[in-house]
Amino acid sequence: MSDFVLSRYLTDEGLLVEAALERAVGRLEPSLEPDLAAALRHGVMSGGKRLRPILCVTAYRACGGTAREAAYDLGAALELIHAYSLMHDDLPCMDDARLRRGRPTTHQEHGEELAVRAGAVLIPAAALQALSAARGLECGNGGAATVAQRLMEAAGAGGMVGGQWLDLLGENEALAADALDGLHRRKTGALLAASLEVGATAAGASPPVIEALREYGQAIGLAFQIADDILDGTQSAERLGKNPSDADLNKSTYVSLYGLEEARHRAEELVHEALSALTNGGIEAPALVSLAHYIVARDR
Amino acid sequence: MSDFVLSRYLTDEGLLVEAALERAVGRLEPSLEPDLAAALRHGVMSGGKRLRPILCVTAYRACGGTAREAAYDLGAALELIHAYSLMHDDLPCMDDARLRRGRPTTHQEHGEELAVRAGAVLIPAAALQALSAARGLECGNGGAATVAQRLMEAAGAGGMVGGQWLDLLGENEALAADALDGLHRRKTGALLAASLEVGATAAGASPPVIEALREYGQAIGLAFQIADDILDGTQSAERLGKNPSDADLNKSTYVSLYGLEEARHRAEELVHEALSALTNGGIEAPALVSLAHYIVARDR
Repeated sequence: MSDFVLSRYLTDEGLLVEAALERAVGRLEPSLEPDLAAALRHGVMSGGKRLRPILCVTAYRACGGTAREAAYDLGAALELIHAYSLMHDDLPCMDDARLRRGRPTTHQEHGEELAVRAGAVLIPAAALQALSAARGLECGNGGAATVAQRLMEAAGAGGMVGGQWLDLLGENEALAADALDGLHRRKTGALLAASLEVGATAAGASPPVIEALREYGQAIGLAFQIADDILDGTQSAERLGKNPSDADLNKSTYVSLYGLEEARHRAEELVHEALSALTNGGIEAPALVSLAHYIVARDR
Repeated sequence: MSDFVLSRYLTDEGLLVEAALERAVGRLEPSLEPDLAAALRHGVMSGGKRLRPILCVTAYRACGGTAREAAYDLGAALELIHAYSLMHDDLPCMDDARLRRGRPTTHQEHGEELAVRAGAVLIPAAALQALSAARGLECGNGGAATVAQRLMEAAGAGGMVGGQWLDLLGENEALAADALDGLHRRKTGALLAASLEVGATAAGASPPVIEALREYGQAIGLAFQIADDILDGTQSAERLGKNPSDADLNKSTYVSLYGLEEARHRAEELVHEALSALTNGGIEAPALVSLAHYIVARDR
């Protein structure tokens, strides 16, 4: 068996991701007015576990990718999209959140205009970062277009912004109409799934392997969201490092629709699906096995 | 000499661009909640001259491109970025504009949240639209990555959002510090220039031809902005179809810095530079010649 230790892995990889994000922000800053650059830095260099880049780099290596720095640069592109979505979600006209990971949100610190602009500028920045990084990886120039495509699909309509997650909740379940509200909150699942696919594609993986990682990513992406719903329902604001907004409190979640027991059961089922996808795809990666378990067991 | 008639050209091309935009919006709508789809449609299908797509398609044809529908789909990608920038610029936390082309702005009609979200979703949509369209054009799959790269550069830091236009205002002129404010308003120039480059790249044009069209595009892009400043300074709100905001009125412009006479002179000089770039690049395109003159002579 493996002597893989996830906590150590997350710490070590997290540091390499931070360095890649610092490079990314450093490249953007000279092109921006100082106040916009500061807002962008606030939103991106804001801590967090950097799960998306870590999933991306882990999938990349699981598919035989060998590059170092460029792989983390690719992973950082996913975190830029994540940072955009948090900055915009927190806006007064959206969730009106004042705290995020125990710090003031970007608009709270830098004003609404700069939070809107910094968030939007992260989208093309992420596309460029992914294109540039992927060109230096095993997929080459042609694959770089596919990598950018997958990232932009996840970032836009049908991905983070849209309804694709409806299907994954269970084909035989009649969803309550208000469950659609909950899709808002499930949107991060699309980006988690894309993190895996992007990493695999950049490594030049074969279509069946990319498909297996897509299935793994979709399963843990939804498990992640259900785990989030469970955490929201059972933890205090202090522990979460944010104030649950009225909007949050009124939104229907997997837990409010199906109950805590059923939600936990479904999350475990999804972890099992994720691990089966790895086995079926012939992918041996202790880190991905541990990450799947971690996704539902984490305390945030 | 040519019997080229620009007004007819703009009308005919405009109709084909509208059809491409209708296709683009129609592809996005099924992935979006109905209210978000309505906001996006409001912001995109809002009239206007569609100059950027027309410049893109015209450059594409001037470089020997022969495709029809896919070329307009590529041009539409530039308009999606333009629509995003207008929707966000009009927001209450930005210019707080209530009218745009004589109609209510997107946030005025659909609310602030949907205007922010619809604007942001247009950025990945434009990248995907450009990638997909360019793959069907002369540049092939590898060139599609370059096309997407150029579009995202124009849409982000260093392009529409940033300071690259500073250089173009005149290397030997010491810019007044408050002229930096005016850069905000010049940002559309970056997208006009990109429209030409993207079209040329998609046609598989040679580097010197792309470079010539880049020079043409930069010159008319800046001329366009100066013409805008002149129009803002000399036309009434009624004619412009929008309310000049306080922010607008306080912003320094080419006219406020250099006077009307000098601004007109500089605009004509830039048109001359644009035409020289075409000649030097060996590009024969009556439409591009007429468009350069039109850019500074239009009444909006």
